[in-house]
Amino acid sequence: MILCKHEDIYYLTGFYGKYSNSILVISPQKIYLLVNFIFYEDALSSTGMNGLEVVLYKGNRIKKAAEVVSSLKIKNVAVESSHMNHSDFIGLSRELKKCRIKTTACKGIMNHLRSIKDRHELNNISQACRITDLAFSEIVSYGHKKMSARSELALVNEIEGLCIKNGGNGRSFDYVIASGPDTSKPHYCPSHKNISGELLLMDFGTIHERYCSDITRTVFLQEKLIGQRLNDIYKIVLEAQLKSIDACKEGIRCDELDSIARRHIKDSGYGDQFGHGLGHGVGLEVHEEPYITRKNKTVLKKNMVITIEPGIYIPGLGGVRIEDMVVVEKSGCRNLYTSKKDFTFLS
Amino acid sequence: MILCKHEDIYYLTGFYGKYSNSILVISPQKIYLLVNFIFYEDALSSTGMNGLEVVLYKGNRIKKAAEVVSSLKIKNVAVESSHMNHSDFIGLSRELKKCRIKTTACKGIMNHLRSIKDRHELNNISQACRITDLAFSEIVSYGHKKMSARSELALVNEIEGLCIKNGGNGRSFDYVIASGPDTSKPHYCPSHKNISGELLLMDFGTIHERYCSDITRTVFLQEKLIGQRLNDIYKIVLEAQLKSIDACKEGIRCDELDSIARRHIKDSGYGDQFGHGLGHGVGLEVHEEPYITRKNKTVLKKNMVITIEPGIYIPGLGGVRIEDMVVVEKSGCRNLYTSKKDFTFLS
Repeated sequence: MILCKHEDIYYLTGFYGKYSNSILVISPQKIYLLVNFIFYEDALSSTGMNGLEVVLYKGNRIKKAAEVVSSLKIKNVAVESSHMNHSDFIGLSRELKKCRIKTTACKGIMNHLRSIKDRHELNNISQACRITDLAFSEIVSYGHKKMSARSELALVNEIEGLCIKNGGNGRSFDYVIASGPDTSKPHYCPSHKNISGELLLMDFGTIHERYCSDITRTVFLQEKLIGQRLNDIYKIVLEAQLKSIDACKEGIRCDELDSIARRHIKDSGYGDQFGHGLGHGVGLEVHEEPYITRKNKTVLKKNMVITIEPGIYIPGLGGVRIEDMVVVEKSGCRNLYTSKKDFTFLS
Repeated sequence: MILCKHEDIYYLTGFYGKYSNSILVISPQKIYLLVNFIFYEDALSSTGMNGLEVVLYKGNRIKKAAEVVSSLKIKNVAVESSHMNHSDFIGLSRELKKCRIKTTACKGIMNHLRSIKDRHELNNISQACRITDLAFSEIVSYGHKKMSARSELALVNEIEGLCIKNGGNGRSFDYVIASGPDTSKPHYCPSHKNISGELLLMDFGTIHERYCSDITRTVFLQEKLIGQRLNDIYKIVLEAQLKSIDACKEGIRCDELDSIARRHIKDSGYGDQFGHGLGHGVGLEVHEEPYITRKNKTVLKKNMVITIEPGIYIPGLGGVRIEDMVVVEKSGCRNLYTSKKDFTFLS
């Protein structure tokens, strides 16, 4: 089998090569890790695996993979096809065909394996969440005046700095820091604008030992709101989130869990304003399986780690999202955060 | 034609959807931009293009793309196959086959288009470089004592903060901040270790209006070096870099330019210690075409923007890399940086 997603390779070998274009060839006899010059020293020192050989490639990695595979006495090779681009897949299968080796596309084996976390992984994720909690408690103590002296981008940088100070390894994704009406854009891109308006939405996280955290809190910047609507929306989103957390346990299907928040939001009159899934798995990637969406029939299993993050977004007015990470357990779930989520004013 | 790389889509439409999984379908009559709920508001407001229709998809984006394509009166569709994973490509071509539409893999058209920058792009890139220069001049004024009180990760965060303060939009890639023997790892991953040892290598950059910058400087932390070797290496790398910049102009092939630095380093006795390419294009992506490598026969054209970054890496001792960005011109090239690169001690 051939794998080329760096998180999959790390999961199996201990070598972490983000942007390294490394390839892992797994054969019954031996495992080959193909890396280029830049990552060679690192690959040699980070994988103490028995039966693993680090292979240095120069130039075309697909040609090298074909060379390694064709040197083995095999007739079939599987490729994780959702992590290899079509052009590379065709190049590889053409080379292998010359040696009468058949290339088969397969999908999702590693995603499935990685979705259930072992004790070591749960410890790392919990630690990332604990650091995230610490960063949030510092940020939320800032108060309105200090906060509105900052640009969105400066706040991104500052939150990452707090994560690092508390032991995190930088940020786990491009933070969404939005204020005022921009909070209605779920993936808003922070700018040099200063924090202003009624709402501040902060979606951030950090990394501990390669494992990610992800949290969202929406706080209020003004005690006297222009209207009651944002207040109502906050209440509805929080109720939807708490209901979903209550229902989350081993055995429930992703679509069933999604529908609990969705129904509550719909019944409250905002069905069309919650357009994304309820959550996603978190691990080596900040977004990974299982995806908690309307259509995913996957059954949640013990020790999966997922986010629960309903939201309501009103263009022109603003949006509210509240996100926690939980570990699925036999008869419930364990919230990995302690950050407060009741209605919060930065006074 | 179908495109699914977000930088390509931005280049053509003005809609920037990083991680958005958007798809662009270009037909003779009309252009369709397929986005999900999260990016819908943004897509509507950011593309003022004539003949472009924003299409909202729910669920499977590949099925939606097939639906859109099959509603057109066409017989063939091309897909940029190095930016679509094999699994999606197969799914798409199967759906289209049902409607007697043939799917053809094509490769590199957009990369080629994007490699030559127009005036607007050159302005944005120059501005990103100017901000990067400002951040470097602040960092290099720190002095040895202030620097060694910092962890590598804290310095990553601080450099990004300086870029933001000077007008940049955060960082353009995961910075490499390495000190001491870790400088021998070209893509070292920064940790909580404090800056220490003889050398400090900083590879960083920022973003201005979606366009990236990328710079590397290696500075000395101690005036009295343990041996003469790092000093010699610094001199060789700098000479190789200056020679390459001197030779860089319209008409030279990438492999020829690469060989100028490579020959100088080889002749100085360190041929095996320069294992990566001499540089790469920079634009909307921090790494894009043209790649200045041993095997790339691409001829440099006016207004391409590339890095020139030779390095020598000695495991256990350390490494030196010096990187600038230049605009290729008719009879030479223009360096986009003014950051000093002569032997620098942080005293």
